[in-house]
Amino acid sequence: MKAFYGDLRLGILGGGQLGRMLIQQAINYNVTVKVLDPDRDAPCRKLCDEFVTGSLSDYETVYNFGKKVDLLTIEIEKVNVDALEQLEREGVVVYPQPRVIRLIQDKGLQKQFFKENEIPTAEFQIISNAKDLEQAQIPFPYIQKLRRDGYDGKGVYKVVDQSYLENAFTEPSLIERWVDFEKEIAVIVARNEKGDIETFPMVEMEFNPEANLVEFLISPSTLSFEVQQEAATIAKKIAESLRIVGLLAVEMFLDKSGKILVNELAPRPHNSGHQTIEGNVVSQFEQHLRAIFNQPLGNTESLSNAIMINVLGEQGHEGPAVYQGIEKVLNCPGVYVHLYGKALTKPFRKMGHVTIVDVDREKAIEKARYVQNTLKVVS
Amino acid sequence: MKAFYGDLRLGILGGGQLGRMLIQQAINYNVTVKVLDPDRDAPCRKLCDEFVTGSLSDYETVYNFGKKVDLLTIEIEKVNVDALEQLEREGVVVYPQPRVIRLIQDKGLQKQFFKENEIPTAEFQIISNAKDLEQAQIPFPYIQKLRRDGYDGKGVYKVVDQSYLENAFTEPSLIERWVDFEKEIAVIVARNEKGDIETFPMVEMEFNPEANLVEFLISPSTLSFEVQQEAATIAKKIAESLRIVGLLAVEMFLDKSGKILVNELAPRPHNSGHQTIEGNVVSQFEQHLRAIFNQPLGNTESLSNAIMINVLGEQGHEGPAVYQGIEKVLNCPGVYVHLYGKALTKPFRKMGHVTIVDVDREKAIEKARYVQNTLKVVS
Repeated sequence: MKAFYGDLRLGILGGGQLGRMLIQQAINYNVTVKVLDPDRDAPCRKLCDEFVTGSLSDYETVYNFGKKVDLLTIEIEKVNVDALEQLEREGVVVYPQPRVIRLIQDKGLQKQFFKENEIPTAEFQIISNAKDLEQAQIPFPYIQKLRRDGYDGKGVYKVVDQSYLENAFTEPSLIERWVDFEKEIAVIVARNEKGDIETFPMVEMEFNPEANLVEFLISPSTLSFEVQQEAATIAKKIAESLRIVGLLAVEMFLDKSGKILVNELAPRPHNSGHQTIEGNVVSQFEQHLRAIFNQPLGNTESLSNAIMINVLGEQGHEGPAVYQGIEKVLNCPGVYVHLYGKALTKPFRKMGHVTIVDVDREKAIEKARYVQNTLKVVS
Repeated sequence: MKAFYGDLRLGILGGGQLGRMLIQQAINYNVTVKVLDPDRDAPCRKLCDEFVTGSLSDYETVYNFGKKVDLLTIEIEKVNVDALEQLEREGVVVYPQPRVIRLIQDKGLQKQFFKENEIPTAEFQIISNAKDLEQAQIPFPYIQKLRRDGYDGKGVYKVVDQSYLENAFTEPSLIERWVDFEKEIAVIVARNEKGDIETFPMVEMEFNPEANLVEFLISPSTLSFEVQQEAATIAKKIAESLRIVGLLAVEMFLDKSGKILVNELAPRPHNSGHQTIEGNVVSQFEQHLRAIFNQPLGNTESLSNAIMINVLGEQGHEGPAVYQGIEKVLNCPGVYVHLYGKALTKPFRKMGHVTIVDVDREKAIEKARYVQNTLKVVS
């Protein structure tokens, strides 16, 4: 592979906010960046050397795009993997590897992988059709998840009792024992070609139940050292078993009995790592670049307490985005606003995020609440 | 003026590394950025909404460029100020103000401004022609500086004795008493439209005498509190006297008697503030944006010891740039590489910078020396 600074052409499948923040970091290394996204107004459109408008799931489009780069990565896993495998055979470096993307695209394969590799996860059953569902061995309530294309809470359905089966998905899915969890936690792990592995400190998340999105995240966690160490060990074990090159976000539940269960994987920069930009020695974006370029991985230590808040489009507002309250928010020290360059807002759309850094954890939480109440995206 | 996020069109005169790092920060605010630079391969070329190739000193070019934006700023002060004044009359917001750029462009006017405002500076005399120079009242040795267009050590000449007069500049210049200084120091100050003023902590610089460029900078300074406070007071006084909106870098000497003398001003982000990206709560680039957008200024506190090293083209190398030793440098924790996207290297050209952050000052210095010996730009 060419040197990662200067003459390397990096292709990114997807031109959303994750790609945008990856480019913001890649600027430091003179990387030539090309981006493919179906939306001609995607957040990356003006920040790359070449922006191609096209489908991420179309074989020809992905193949032709990939032929123009030396190294291909993703910022979304819903991409045409057949094209990636062909590109790999033809000598394009694709990180994360197509086989990893293929596995993670399918929540059924993901769960089977957990089982085969003795990764703790909630009990599950693969469902092929309505009949399977009727004969399910998992007690109510349980969660039904589409095997493919679920995203940000879409493709997930809670089956509380028999009466809910009527509206259950009929597509290939899996059902999973309901976890009455104490906390959602996440660890981002990076692995490079040489096999070096580094985890970021574990974070705790709070979800907006209505939007089913991470809304409030705090780093580092104050849960016990044992829990943090176990979560890191699990994340490393998964990265090693997959032999992934790049970042892997591992979302987990800590259940009420103190047991960690892996929920889902994302083989790319992830919403649960945005606070690393200001809160850690290296950011997840820098780390992803280092991993896919086979460079030494960076130091992931936390510099301070960091809270990340997603800035979501307000309910009842759809259209050109207007940001309220930014001036007030900028008046707080240690508050970092990141807008994603999306022209149009709609309810719960991720329009940006804010990171609050403070050596005093309580003050950080107080500021985070203020930011949540102050910064609004309306139309 | 329009809201500074989303719908505001920001024009930057100059597309070099300062513009590049300003854009890298402006991404967080959805700002639409247009850049004018004479070099069609300038570092900003691929990172803005519109890149215009054209002269910064040509009236028509600057005027036509400025008519397409709401707010115009600079990353280099050698620009056509007549055009800026006309644009200002026609309602374009120009920060820093054209009158400030005009004053700072002319080292003679700068010195007179210091004198009129009782800003401590080395004794000087304005020189219009060779005869003035013969009749100079300042004892040898002294420094002769061209009033206009000096840059990075160009346009400066040391007159050691009578025999040096033969090669002295004949253009309008000033001569300045030789300062046998202990330290070069700098303070970056920001002022917004409302008149809020904030200084960054004072930094100490080490120059490469051969290249006459800042090569090694350390922040925060460990000089006495009194010196630091005096330097900050001087920087604020200058910003207030100028009523500048934007950043102002104030380069100063600390002479052997402990007296501070102001050397030069730069009304823009400056080489002496690059370490603020990782070393301070807000960076100089964020602060410049906040100032020109009339937002609350950010907290300038140092987070840690930060050392900034310019990455200069090696002597004896001219042509397409090759970067040696990056992998080794990335192996040190807390080391941040910033390359400027310049395709061609030449001796002493600023190709990038590296910031080293460490809570232990001695370790930071040790790492900085390692980086200096390891990272090389050759052809």
